[in-house]
Amino acid sequence: MAADIDEQPAGYERLLSAEYAAPIARVAAAIAERRPRHVVFTARGTSDHAALYGAYLAEIRLGLPAGLASPSAITLFGARPDLSDALVVGVSQSGGSPDLTEVLRVAREAGALTLAVTNAPDSPLAATAELGVDIAAGHERAVAATKTYTAELLALLLLVEGIRAGDGVLPEEERRAVAELPELAARTLADPTASELAPRYRFAGQLVTTGRGYAYPTAREAALKLMETSYLPALAFSGADLLHGPLAMTDPDVPVLAVVGSGPGGQSMGEVLPRLGERRADVLVVGSAEVAGATRIAVPEVDERYAPLLDILPLQRLALALALARGEDPDAPRGLKKVTATM
Amino acid sequence: MAADIDEQPAGYERLLSAEYAAPIARVAAAIAERRPRHVVFTARGTSDHAALYGAYLAEIRLGLPAGLASPSAITLFGARPDLSDALVVGVSQSGGSPDLTEVLRVAREAGALTLAVTNAPDSPLAATAELGVDIAAGHERAVAATKTYTAELLALLLLVEGIRAGDGVLPEEERRAVAELPELAARTLADPTASELAPRYRFAGQLVTTGRGYAYPTAREAALKLMETSYLPALAFSGADLLHGPLAMTDPDVPVLAVVGSGPGGQSMGEVLPRLGERRADVLVVGSAEVAGATRIAVPEVDERYAPLLDILPLQRLALALALARGEDPDAPRGLKKVTATM
Repeated sequence: MAADIDEQPAGYERLLSAEYAAPIARVAAAIAERRPRHVVFTARGTSDHAALYGAYLAEIRLGLPAGLASPSAITLFGARPDLSDALVVGVSQSGGSPDLTEVLRVAREAGALTLAVTNAPDSPLAATAELGVDIAAGHERAVAATKTYTAELLALLLLVEGIRAGDGVLPEEERRAVAELPELAARTLADPTASELAPRYRFAGQLVTTGRGYAYPTAREAALKLMETSYLPALAFSGADLLHGPLAMTDPDVPVLAVVGSGPGGQSMGEVLPRLGERRADVLVVGSAEVAGATRIAVPEVDERYAPLLDILPLQRLALALALARGEDPDAPRGLKKVTATM
Repeated sequence: MAADIDEQPAGYERLLSAEYAAPIARVAAAIAERRPRHVVFTARGTSDHAALYGAYLAEIRLGLPAGLASPSAITLFGARPDLSDALVVGVSQSGGSPDLTEVLRVAREAGALTLAVTNAPDSPLAATAELGVDIAAGHERAVAATKTYTAELLALLLLVEGIRAGDGVLPEEERRAVAELPELAARTLADPTASELAPRYRFAGQLVTTGRGYAYPTAREAALKLMETSYLPALAFSGADLLHGPLAMTDPDVPVLAVVGSGPGGQSMGEVLPRLGERRADVLVVGSAEVAGATRIAVPEVDERYAPLLDILPLQRLALALALARGEDPDAPRGLKKVTATM
């Protein structure tokens, strides 16, 4: 897992190279030409959080309504929604989940434009979709997904910005910004703060993660990593939803990890953090925003839509270090398999 | 909270009476005439779970792609998605959440057909939407929503079946089935099993809820009630997602509440329950399905799409009884307000 985590800056570099970025640009151009009216993502587990990031990008950057489909409506209840105006995107590192493949098969039959975003271009999911994006993350050794998650994020970012451009080619400013990500990711991973803080949670019985907008997928993915590797019940809430009920649960014994960036999402956490303060919650802030008085893992400042590619890195490190501190084996979480087959 | 819970059978009866069902039928007919191509729900907290139920209904019963919008894309990041083919539904007991009202305002401006489903027909949300459905649940005394949740479910069911019928009028068979719900709800609430089981969880440090398809909103809502009233970290997963990671977290010390009905959703839990068994998890089954060897809260058998209107009832009772057993005040959860305002 440590090796997978460390490979992420190189993974960004690879995906940004012409060899992999050019095919993504062609797929983006093909999608732009077909002018879908809305976007439906389908994914499971870690990839579901990448899909959530993709949905925010599609809504904010493309002005396309976007949502996450529940595969069960199609696979179990036989729903056959009219998807003729839709772009349906399956996101999966293995491309081997039968339910996602079935959703893409049904969607394609219904006239949707279908796309598989996967680390396995020869997978059933990729074979079923009309279009495919290879996230090129290489073999992932640990069961807990890390480098395939961030590669999915970057692939979706390149794809959406390519669709926005129309011809798949990123505008100069955008290209310059994403070109900095490998170096920024390496710098983020070089900071030992996350690993140093891990022992603090050695005896935590549970944990809450929170973030808004682009930071919400990061909060969700951080919670999943902590559950998978440290067996720590970790609850993720959007900052707004936290105030609608779960806030009652927080007290000084419930650590909170708040992902707070420097854009509108991070600023809106300004109404959440004081409420956590009133409940005397133990808050650790992760991100580029300065928060007065809070313990913090600083991450280089970037536009909020790039932040998910950096903010998750120290949180992966935290999950790994905490698993080790708790005497667990993060490479082989109990009860899990690398490919999960459900219908 | 106990009184709110007990009022639910009467609430079903009221909503099914001509006084309230007829306006819902008219709204359904108006929606059917406008032929939306897809449905976007927006909601927070408990109402978000009702919206999730609505999304399953729309996909399965109407064949319309349906999803839940992240208000923050619109309210914080200024997304202006093209919603001209969409039905946008705001679900909120208070109708007072500024972010949902803003989403409906933007959606209506963008040409969407907008609908407010609320317990407050004079609320800002209802005033902003073109169409409105009054869930007529009466004043809810407890902060933790119970009777407004199930009234939202029933209103969405009547609405979707009315749209399916085209003229808003439920077919005879459907009408007969929903007419039985008040009596079935009363029978479900008369069963003391849930309250009797509550002390079992007195010292639980966390809890997992799970269900698939129509049962997934029930699992989510049960988790939220437990968090709000008993301050018990409760993690809800679709049965499929549970196998993608969080399964590692379950062990004999983590109680699992599994919502298992008699249709395709419940049957598909047949691949989840044995995996929980391998992890020696402590499983309590709630629903109409017989599960060999499991402790169970039995609920009358109905078509799976009606089951959310019954399955949640014993889980509300369980949350209430557990809060009392833990010495908490379920009527006034710490840190919460009845109306939560976020942007």
